[in-house]
Amino acid sequence: MTDLPAPVAARRGRPGYDQRQILEVAVTTFIEHGYDATSVALLAERLGLSKSAMYHHFTSKEQLLSSALDQALGGLEGVLLEPDAVSGTPGDRLGYVLDRAVQVLVDRLPYVTLLLRVRGNSEVERSALARRRAFDEKVTEIVSAAQLEGSVRADVEASLATRLLFGMVNSIVEWYRPAGAEDPAQLARDVLTVALDGLRTRRS
Amino acid sequence: MTDLPAPVAARRGRPGYDQRQILEVAVTTFIEHGYDATSVALLAERLGLSKSAMYHHFTSKEQLLSSALDQALGGLEGVLLEPDAVSGTPGDRLGYVLDRAVQVLVDRLPYVTLLLRVRGNSEVERSALARRRAFDEKVTEIVSAAQLEGSVRADVEASLATRLLFGMVNSIVEWYRPAGAEDPAQLARDVLTVALDGLRTRRS
Repeated sequence: MTDLPAPVAARRGRPGYDQRQILEVAVTTFIEHGYDATSVALLAERLGLSKSAMYHHFTSKEQLLSSALDQALGGLEGVLLEPDAVSGTPGDRLGYVLDRAVQVLVDRLPYVTLLLRVRGNSEVERSALARRRAFDEKVTEIVSAAQLEGSVRADVEASLATRLLFGMVNSIVEWYRPAGAEDPAQLARDVLTVALDGLRTRRS
Repeated sequence: MTDLPAPVAARRGRPGYDQRQILEVAVTTFIEHGYDATSVALLAERLGLSKSAMYHHFTSKEQLLSSALDQALGGLEGVLLEPDAVSGTPGDRLGYVLDRAVQVLVDRLPYVTLLLRVRGNSEVERSALARRRAFDEKVTEIVSAAQLEGSVRADVEASLATRLLFGMVNSIVEWYRPAGAEDPAQLARDVLTVALDGLRTRRS
């Protein structure tokens, strides 16, 4: 099986695509057309590859989806294993996890966008939803611990607080554009400010 | 043109559907299958109506989409015209609008869900997006005014604050279920608490 010279790759002076590049084009196409409406033939056309050249890199469209969702989920799950997510006060850990989650979202924008559109229509999608739930549960545990130590208000239920926090964080995919004016680090600080300190000024 | 007796309606002892009921079934189907993938034939089948009976109520699938989006947008736009949204301090007006927006979302859940999935693929969708933008701009004006009066923090840009607030509010469609344990009024209070006062406890 030989990769045909791909138009896009040729323009960049490259002999072909690597797995990562194929994944990127696939994810962009899934987001644009919807996963179900995207055929391997359409992906091949976009890449300027033959279908057999595509299958040299990936065994199925579902494997592309699975790899793409793994990029998003792996990034988020990785955050929870970082030193500052597992040591320190629960309040500080929560701030750290939120900050890093915004960074992951910005760094892996198309992958996270795809993850947030998953509705559980296949085994791959249901497995991704289960991993999202497990992530949310771990964050909820941190929120609960922060409530116990008194650094986070206890009058909003921990799992609802987590949903609202990540509702805010995830909504960034709807409007954030990498080429835009928004600085990712500043964006993360603003999210933390609104989520943790609230919009209302504190009169003392 | 005569409505054929519809199986669902017949079970309920009704002679047929009114426009509202057809709209509800259409919106549910659009959400489940995606608007593009939903044919008038599928809608007719779900309603147990002939296609010609469908066209007795609606001229096109696009008109159903337009009516559905209008339910969501009309609800939100109506909030901005209510007395407590136009008089009082900007800080109070912002709290009122957020609270009512959560109520509209919960009351018109499928319509708002559909609105939030609109990507601008047709004239109807682009017009809905323009109305969403106009709504956001009016809320941003209230946030700006609240910043000027000093009741809302000025270190987060007003339009970003609005996006994050509605990111949090809109995320409710992802998990809220009318039959669930969540009381809508309590939910609205919790959203306001997190968004305006923040999750972090205030130590004096």
